[in-house]
Amino acid sequence: MDVLFDHCRTERIGLPETVFCQGKPLETLTRLMREQAAPGATPLLFTRLFPDIFEALPADARDLVDYHPLSKTALGGTLPQRERGRVAVVSAGTCDGPVAHEAARTLAYLGIQHTIYEDSGVAGVWRLASRLEAINTHDVIIVVAGMDAALATVLGGLTPKPVVAVPTSVGYGVAEGGRAALHAMLSSCAPGVCVLNIDNGYGAACAAARIIGAICG
Amino acid sequence: MDVLFDHCRTERIGLPETVFCQGKPLETLTRLMREQAAPGATPLLFTRLFPDIFEALPADARDLVDYHPLSKTALGGTLPQRERGRVAVVSAGTCDGPVAHEAARTLAYLGIQHTIYEDSGVAGVWRLASRLEAINTHDVIIVVAGMDAALATVLGGLTPKPVVAVPTSVGYGVAEGGRAALHAMLSSCAPGVCVLNIDNGYGAACAAARIIGAICG
Amino acid sequence: MDVLFDHCRTERIGLPETVFCQGKPLETLTRLMREQAAPGATPLLFTRLFPDIFEALPADARDLVDYHPLSKTALGGTLPQRERGRVAVVSAGTCDGPVAHEAARTLAYLGIQHTIYEDSGVAGVWRLASRLEAINTHDVIIVVAGMDAALATVLGGLTPKPVVAVPTSVGYGVAEGGRAALHAMLSSCAPGVCVLNIDNGYGAACAAARIIGAICG
Amino acid sequence: MDVLFDHCRTERIGLPETVFCQGKPLETLTRLMREQAAPGATPLLFTRLFPDIFEALPADARDLVDYHPLSKTALGGTLPQRERGRVAVVSAGTCDGPVAHEAARTLAYLGIQHTIYEDSGVAGVWRLASRLEAINTHDVIIVVAGMDAALATVLGGLTPKPVVAVPTSVGYGVAEGGRAALHAMLSSCAPGVCVLNIDNGYGAACAAARIIGAICG
Amino acid sequence: MDVLFDHCRTERIGLPETVFCQGKPLETLTRLMREQAAPGATPLLFTRLFPDIFEALPADARDLVDYHPLSKTALGGTLPQRERGRVAVVSAGTCDGPVAHEAARTLAYLGIQHTIYEDSGVAGVWRLASRLEAINTHDVIIVVAGMDAALATVLGGLTPKPVVAVPTSVGYGVAEGGRAALHAMLSSCAPGVCVLNIDNGYGAACAAARIIGAICG
Amino acid sequence: MDVLFDHCRTERIGLPETVFCQGKPLETLTRLMREQAAPGATPLLFTRLFPDIFEALPADARDLVDYHPLSKTALGGTLPQRERGRVAVVSAGTCDGPVAHEAARTLAYLGIQHTIYEDSGVAGVWRLASRLEAINTHDVIIVVAGMDAALATVLGGLTPKPVVAVPTSVGYGVAEGGRAALHAMLSSCAPGVCVLNIDNGYGAACAAARIIGAICG
Amino acid sequence: MDVLFDHCRTERIGLPETVFCQGKPLETLTRLMREQAAPGATPLLFTRLFPDIFEALPADARDLVDYHPLSKTALGGTLPQRERGRVAVVSAGTCDGPVAHEAARTLAYLGIQHTIYEDSGVAGVWRLASRLEAINTHDVIIVVAGMDAALATVLGGLTPKPVVAVPTSVGYGVAEGGRAALHAMLSSCAPGVCVLNIDNGYGAACAAARIIGAICG
Amino acid sequence: MDVLFDHCRTERIGLPETVFCQGKPLETLTRLMREQAAPGATPLLFTRLFPDIFEALPADARDLVDYHPLSKTALGGTLPQRERGRVAVVSAGTCDGPVAHEAARTLAYLGIQHTIYEDSGVAGVWRLASRLEAINTHDVIIVVAGMDAALATVLGGLTPKPVVAVPTSVGYGVAEGGRAALHAMLSSCAPGVCVLNIDNGYGAACAAARIIGAICG
Repeated sequence: MDVLFDHCRTERIGLPETVFCQGKPLETLTRLMREQAAPGATPLLFTRLFPDIFEALPADARDLVDYHPLSKTALGGTLPQRERGRVAVVSAGTCDGPVAHEAARTLAYLGIQHTIYEDSGVAGVWRLASRLEAINTHDVIIVVAGMDAALATVLGGLTPKPVVAVPTSVGYGVAEGGRAALHAMLSSCAPGVCVLNIDNGYGAACAAARIIGAICG
Repeated sequence: MDVLFDHCRTERIGLPETVFCQGKPLETLTRLMREQAAPGATPLLFTRLFPDIFEALPADARDLVDYHPLSKTALGGTLPQRERGRVAVVSAGTCDGPVAHEAARTLAYLGIQHTIYEDSGVAGVWRLASRLEAINTHDVIIVVAGMDAALATVLGGLTPKPVVAVPTSVGYGVAEGGRAALHAMLSSCAPGVCVLNIDNGYGAACAAARIIGAICG
Repeated sequence: MDVLFDHCRTERIGLPETVFCQGKPLETLTRLMREQAAPGATPLLFTRLFPDIFEALPADARDLVDYHPLSKTALGGTLPQRERGRVAVVSAGTCDGPVAHEAARTLAYLGIQHTIYEDSGVAGVWRLASRLEAINTHDVIIVVAGMDAALATVLGGLTPKPVVAVPTSVGYGVAEGGRAALHAMLSSCAPGVCVLNIDNGYGAACAAARIIGAICG
Repeated sequence: MDVLFDHCRTERIGLPETVFCQGKPLETLTRLMREQAAPGATPLLFTRLFPDIFEALPADARDLVDYHPLSKTALGGTLPQRERGRVAVVSAGTCDGPVAHEAARTLAYLGIQHTIYEDSGVAGVWRLASRLEAINTHDVIIVVAGMDAALATVLGGLTPKPVVAVPTSVGYGVAEGGRAALHAMLSSCAPGVCVLNIDNGYGAACAAARIIGAICG
Repeated sequence: MDVLFDHCRTERIGLPETVFCQGKPLETLTRLMREQAAPGATPLLFTRLFPDIFEALPADARDLVDYHPLSKTALGGTLPQRERGRVAVVSAGTCDGPVAHEAARTLAYLGIQHTIYEDSGVAGVWRLASRLEAINTHDVIIVVAGMDAALATVLGGLTPKPVVAVPTSVGYGVAEGGRAALHAMLSSCAPGVCVLNIDNGYGAACAAARIIGAICG
Repeated sequence: MDVLFDHCRTERIGLPETVFCQGKPLETLTRLMREQAAPGATPLLFTRLFPDIFEALPADARDLVDYHPLSKTALGGTLPQRERGRVAVVSAGTCDGPVAHEAARTLAYLGIQHTIYEDSGVAGVWRLASRLEAINTHDVIIVVAGMDAALATVLGGLTPKPVVAVPTSVGYGVAEGGRAALHAMLSSCAPGVCVLNIDNGYGAACAAARIIGAICG
Repeated sequence: MDVLFDHCRTERIGLPETVFCQGKPLETLTRLMREQAAPGATPLLFTRLFPDIFEALPADARDLVDYHPLSKTALGGTLPQRERGRVAVVSAGTCDGPVAHEAARTLAYLGIQHTIYEDSGVAGVWRLASRLEAINTHDVIIVVAGMDAALATVLGGLTPKPVVAVPTSVGYGVAEGGRAALHAMLSSCAPGVCVLNIDNGYGAACAAARIIGAICG
Repeated sequence: MDVLFDHCRTERIGLPETVFCQGKPLETLTRLMREQAAPGATPLLFTRLFPDIFEALPADARDLVDYHPLSKTALGGTLPQRERGRVAVVSAGTCDGPVAHEAARTLAYLGIQHTIYEDSGVAGVWRLASRLEAINTHDVIIVVAGMDAALATVLGGLTPKPVVAVPTSVGYGVAEGGRAALHAMLSSCAPGVCVLNIDNGYGAACAAARIIGAICG
């Protein structure tokens, strides 16, 4: 079972291939970590790399990457820093942290500047209000929220910037798994809010990168 | 197929029985309109009475009730006006009008004072802000919203009053039928928001009436 | 990942912020337990604190709170006792205990008097009958039931008091996860029964507290 | 498209074949009505025969059957009356009438004695209480209910007789289409309540007939 | 959390109360095992008692019951043997064994004679054919099947006896959890097949017991 | 809105493009009927052409095709008759006729020999038994069934031939729309039964044509 | 029921408010058409304006707007033409036309240049290939597709531009209503494809407009 | 609980019975492994045999089979090699490996020649393009894909061969469990793609074997 890497993808769609670690055997992860660290290789982003899996990798492979447990990501390095284009990552609650940070780490890997605004949920709408001006100085806004996901609508109604919304799977009862948040975001009364799959912080960063690419050439 | 009316229900649970008209034959509706208008009878509330059905009833029966097409309700009269207890009915958009007015008409029938605040959706959060102080002078707040139903969370985070939320079935795609709004309300990050079935404006008014009864003895 | 606590929430909505422990790291829980026990701080309620997590906390932090395994709650203290307003918590079966007691513990934390009536399910309707008079002396009734949730309808038809219903996730087959109970409660033939998310005993207590607040000023 | 009738079915499973009319062309219905009325033929039961379809049939075919609009059934005659075995059909509300009467008409066709108890819903539990003794004199109990379907559980807890439950599709919001009632019945806390498909009054009568057959030989 | 046992239930509905063990604490199970073994007490049936839980009980409690791991049931004894009435339990595949045997063990507890016919699935329809005559000598037939649940329809078309169908949760993909089997059974083209909740072998036995009771007085 | 026809598709995948008529404007249908009848053009198959739409077309266009109301198909002609390869279309009940005949008409259009066996549902399993030998003389078997779709499993267990199963949307309650039949077919205990979308008789014929093509070169 | 128009929205979020016509009374539509045509008023976009509703409006109101039946939109005029920023609208099949044209008409209203590429579905992947170069000259790509929605993934893998995907509700069986297409788009293997609600061509145009605004200042 | 093996199945449907190991006790697996290795016995295929279960079997039983952990299959031997008929197994990504290899191992067991083409997902459509000619030399094509499953449509539009599609359960959010992939495959715009249950690589191989049998006699 060999992985046919699509090494030309960066040129074609502007986004290098990424290693989705969940379900991959330890040997594959180890090999990829070593290969991407070789001279001349493009550094890789590893996502959905759970702490227990990371700890089970050989020490030399672990040392080749920068691991971040909350976001479950590891970076073998970053792509060249882009000079223009800034992204705000705004999340509703502390439970949304893993997804918000997956987006932020992916942006870091892609060399895109960004700021995280956590705990901005609209059950306490003044929290968002106090940060709105700062958020609006960015070029793209990623909104991360679970449960009722009301933050996407309120923020979408307060900014002219592109809004990329990511529902999270946090919650219990009807919120469990993230369908309630996904449907609320897709049904948002704020026009032009576009949506990624549940917990897909990585995809939101890629969508933002496509937009930053369109903005900055 | 005769209807066993529960004429003692008012004493027992404080809420008289109501005629849910959808699916009932014209003769039954006609008979009930005439009976409730008889001297000494308790006036009835008729809900889900669609305009084409109402128009098909005999003129004399129609004249015995006060019909309101938007809310699809007819009142044969109202119960005695309560001196205390006021309810705010706050809705998100004009599409939520039928449900908001069903709640309002039920409150009118029950003799409970109320105010309607329409078009308060939080995709434009300043609309709600300008009305918040007035809304908070009421004893119970009914929130009516479809689509993302974000209004329930924002308002629930801005008021200490009991909040009774009604999702509406307006919308298309994942919002169609009201499940998205229902789930968002049940998942609300604002604590203590309680929820009725989709489009159940009547039930929200009854829940408010139970609370007003508990407040005012 | 820091938590922006909303320390003014009590004034604004009458309900202090609560710590939903599921998914939070041990360090955060430890810190919050210590902070809330500091002189002058508001005591906190911790919910969804599973026994294995509680046991893993440092002994000094554990000693600062009153832990209750069945309800998975810990209290750092309680808010001032309210002089008026009493809540009945009525549950259908022993399996509903965790949710019923989460509601009761939240009421205790909020300083609200309450009584629990367990094993009142209507597959044996005489159990409810024998307690009905006592239940009706309370100002608000919280109904906790899983499976068919028939208790909400039967009790809703026997009391004029506000009824706050909480479906539980107990059961197997189509009842598993609580959707069957949720839908039955939302479809209740008893008018004015309002509903919380599945297993949300905490939210039911907050809804009751909003009503008690409206009753008692 | 010819119908291969299974004329030996009565001997094999004790239930003659029935004509489900919905979606069948008028010519087929007309032909079957004429054929079953021929000398020596077994009279047929026609179900789901909507009034507008029945009115569109030729007058001579219509005259060969006994049509009942509420239940949407037509009978070309009945099978020989059984001497023993009685079935109670208990329904929750007037909206459940079409399904309750489809069950009753099927029992009539099968020659089985039965009694209908309508408006026995447990939002007013005394209605059921006053009829319980009479209901318990029957050999099999068919329960017909929509919405929360709580009647099945309460009655199932009050009788030792076989209980055959039919959910109905009445209701709106989460109750629409009958899944809420179906799931509540399947999750019933009363042991041994067995369930038919939504709106399947015909099937409930067949299940009762199988039981009556087992009882009475 | 005490259990209000309904000791008169046997007289009222003919079925003694049963202990659903899943989720109950070890102490409760231990106490109930000891209590039911006391002189004069009615022996109890324990269901959903997983082997690891059973092994964790004190040896003296374990010795008071007859445990059967496949069905996850324990019996403290059986009710008096009924002289008449026999039930066939027919299952489709070996994976349905736990549910088929839960039904059989419940029948044993209730003192009802029964025979199990396993591996009768209709992907090999001759297996059923060879047993049909023997099956049809019973008074009630319980059908247990997962996946496509086609056995219920084929058997329902070959017997005049009451057919009580139990879907099982075996399978993967769309069959996982048992909804596919449940819906196939509810949609059965064989008339009068009635259905229990997924994996509810206990309930099927209770339904059969109600029928046997009606047959045998 | 012009249609880019893929006139080379026949060479590439062996199946000419087809006109799915539902939702297409009358003018488009008229134009396509006229174009395909032009000298040298490939005759087209029109599917989902409802009778009221067909009647609304101009008479000259209608005369250019062979219309079949039950299957809602029109043929402008047929492709050259294949000398080898025969398909059996086996359906469960008369309600499945529209889908079975859509498959048969598509086979006729594709020049493939076929036989239809209707009313072979396994609630009366002897109907299938009497036809089995004849069915097994064909090279491919298309099974069409709604409701419990048990026919697919029973037939799949009795034939070594390729089995292509089509669920139909007939039925009510949980069977309505065809999901129950679809899931039962996907969960079939007979190995190697493959499945098409609900009501997709056209697709089943195309799948059979691919197999016939592989068989006959 | 008056509409509180949010006339400052253009400044705040760069998108003027739009009239969603479905469910609005004729008088409201008439009034809004007249008001927006008044001197100095911002011209409005009317969406989901079905032909039969449009035909029922007074002739003078109809004359004030440019109506387009396929997209069900009416424009009272357009906003000033933007000099930079071009959007490609790529759709899979002719059935997706209504949604693709709703997007295109909204872009026209917003003064944004755009090109439509219809019939680009990947069941014939060469159709897309021949247009790819032209599509990639645009700044934003809107993909409109129903059924399997495979176009979004294939195109997302061939372009570095922002991709805004809209599922459509065309199709039958599991595709009916658009959930299959929505889920396929959300699950796209091409990174950074973001998604709107089913049939929300208007929203896709707004999302594109937000991006064009970010690109062009 | 004994297993009634259907030893004549090979003659009747051309496919020997297989052991689905998930949920079967270790003793049963051990016994079957030993029995099938006896002289004259037909070698068996064991599916869904998870590595931890395999490791727990006695060493002598393990030595009697050829185990393959990725596909979770064990073979006691293979059926006689077929001289004609070749199958291509084409999968989208490395995560689909377990299902693709379950199909391949089943084909090996059935004595059918096959080739695996992994990592052919259409988010990089050139990967498929470079292999298309080789794939088209086979007689049947099995497509294995999760997430958006777009590969089935693209390949189905590029080949005239029978296409048997298997959705996989890989993915998260709306893709989790494989319903998104299943629905996309069932909704495929490429005509005649037929579909198996989620993760049913075994079934796909059986479907291919039925076709190969029809081709090769």
